[in-house]
Amino acid sequence: MQALYFKKSLTFKKNLPSIVKPGECRIRVLLAGICSTDLEITKGYMGFSGIPGHEFVGVVEQSDDSDWIGKRVVGEINAACGDCCFCIRGMKNHCARRTVLGILGRDGSFAESLSLPIQNLHPLPNEISDEEAVFVEPLAAAFRILEQLPLRSDERVTLLGDGKLGLLIAQALKGTCRLVVVGSHPERRSLLEKWGIDFLSVREAEPLRALSDIVIDATGSPKGFDFAQERVRPGGTIVVKTTCAGKPKIDLARVVINEITVIGSRCGPFPPAIKALRERKVDTHSLISEVYPLRKGKEALRRAAEKGALKILLRP
Amino acid sequence: MQALYFKKSLTFKKNLPSIVKPGECRIRVLLAGICSTDLEITKGYMGFSGIPGHEFVGVVEQSDDSDWIGKRVVGEINAACGDCCFCIRGMKNHCARRTVLGILGRDGSFAESLSLPIQNLHPLPNEISDEEAVFVEPLAAAFRILEQLPLRSDERVTLLGDGKLGLLIAQALKGTCRLVVVGSHPERRSLLEKWGIDFLSVREAEPLRALSDIVIDATGSPKGFDFAQERVRPGGTIVVKTTCAGKPKIDLARVVINEITVIGSRCGPFPPAIKALRERKVDTHSLISEVYPLRKGKEALRRAAEKGALKILLRP
Repeated sequence: MQALYFKKSLTFKKNLPSIVKPGECRIRVLLAGICSTDLEITKGYMGFSGIPGHEFVGVVEQSDDSDWIGKRVVGEINAACGDCCFCIRGMKNHCARRTVLGILGRDGSFAESLSLPIQNLHPLPNEISDEEAVFVEPLAAAFRILEQLPLRSDERVTLLGDGKLGLLIAQALKGTCRLVVVGSHPERRSLLEKWGIDFLSVREAEPLRALSDIVIDATGSPKGFDFAQERVRPGGTIVVKTTCAGKPKIDLARVVINEITVIGSRCGPFPPAIKALRERKVDTHSLISEVYPLRKGKEALRRAAEKGALKILLRP
Repeated sequence: MQALYFKKSLTFKKNLPSIVKPGECRIRVLLAGICSTDLEITKGYMGFSGIPGHEFVGVVEQSDDSDWIGKRVVGEINAACGDCCFCIRGMKNHCARRTVLGILGRDGSFAESLSLPIQNLHPLPNEISDEEAVFVEPLAAAFRILEQLPLRSDERVTLLGDGKLGLLIAQALKGTCRLVVVGSHPERRSLLEKWGIDFLSVREAEPLRALSDIVIDATGSPKGFDFAQERVRPGGTIVVKTTCAGKPKIDLARVVINEITVIGSRCGPFPPAIKALRERKVDTHSLISEVYPLRKGKEALRRAAEKGALKILLRP
């Protein structure tokens, strides 16, 4: 099969074997999305080699359970052992022996097909198009915030970051709190205002220090945390979505003095993401910058790294 | 009056004025305790100049309310404005205009007397000696953890640090959870075992990674947070008590991947600390290394900085 392959550098391969792991399904990929994590991976993040990509929508082609064959699905990216102390606690996303689609020990979605366990799959209702469904995984990561930190309607929440993930988080949180998005792309203002969400440029936000009950760092930048500390009130909470290679210097004494709570947030629940798309509560159409054929994947990843690019999709 | 004075360097002064701020009380200091924060302050932390010291027990000598005169008291160290958005929310320790005894804009307890507002004072029952009462402030900081994070009896808690604060936290937490203290002073083992608290040396703790539900960093070291990340399980909590100057490099991606919650923890409630001392639930006697006369304060601070020293007290 055709696929993008990363080992020190990214190459397009025409004749990779399509391997289905024992007890898993083969899923033909209809569309795959490029995430900032994929860009980090091609810089060496996680030490991954293999086929990258973890966002996809596809059709089950092969399964031990014939009921699944032909179903259009999205898939959770953490494949868990089911036996370790975290799996037993129901924390499958933190399984000690997990593999992660296109990130850790498991080939991903920048390919004609991929392999995942049946229990990772979610069938899709017909009302959700492929172009919407490919956003389920990052939208689930956005909904993870509400799972970890139920918001009150009077809470002042600053979302730092108006990139791909930030714009999904903004929509997931809309109506749950007093939300403002602070971003470095002034051209996103009209988009957010169309959705009824307040926007401030970084410069406009500068005077409004220590005013937020909660700050969400979805900047994707090592500087995001410092900026979050400027914005959050004493006793407030910083939710960190940003994963960068390296160790940024953090003013930890300030976390102590202001008694800040910091919450790391990663993968999230698929059902509320699917529900939100089905109910047309999230606009994904405006988030698609371009669709590339898989064979132009290298070009697509370069495009995805450009400032101002939103979601770049790959079609096998 | 006699006092220690810090401005770039520490000096003992014989003739400082004893100033009572308008509306406040003058308290004659009976005993003052040296905290690691005081040592940091003499290295430039917080940019403080004036009389350092924030742990004390004393007697009210002057007050607008004559009922207080002659009372033996301890005092909360944050003097709040009462009007700002944090005071109004009941977060006086985070008052935006606060001064802090011996730390921020207010002379401290390494002196014959000090000034504090009446609302900061707590009268002491006779059963608590001066040598015990001088521990109320740091013991309150230990109890702050239980206020922020109610512990369940089945939770595995690792307390990193067997110094002055660590040994108070250990006693405050005893019986609330499955506690183990990990420390760098093997000679503390017998003390902790006397109290019925498990102890592991740093070397003994090495193989026990990712096993704790909660890790408390009371190391006072910039390396404490990294060590805490080694010990805490995915989805677990790190409570940070350590305040160091500078910005340590933090593996923030690991906080995200493992979805760790980090809670900064500073000053705490005095009533449970006073209650615990009154009920003889906390052994402070074993924590006193030496008592120095105030005029030998410089020597006392040097002694407090030596490895293995526990609490050094100053008697005016």
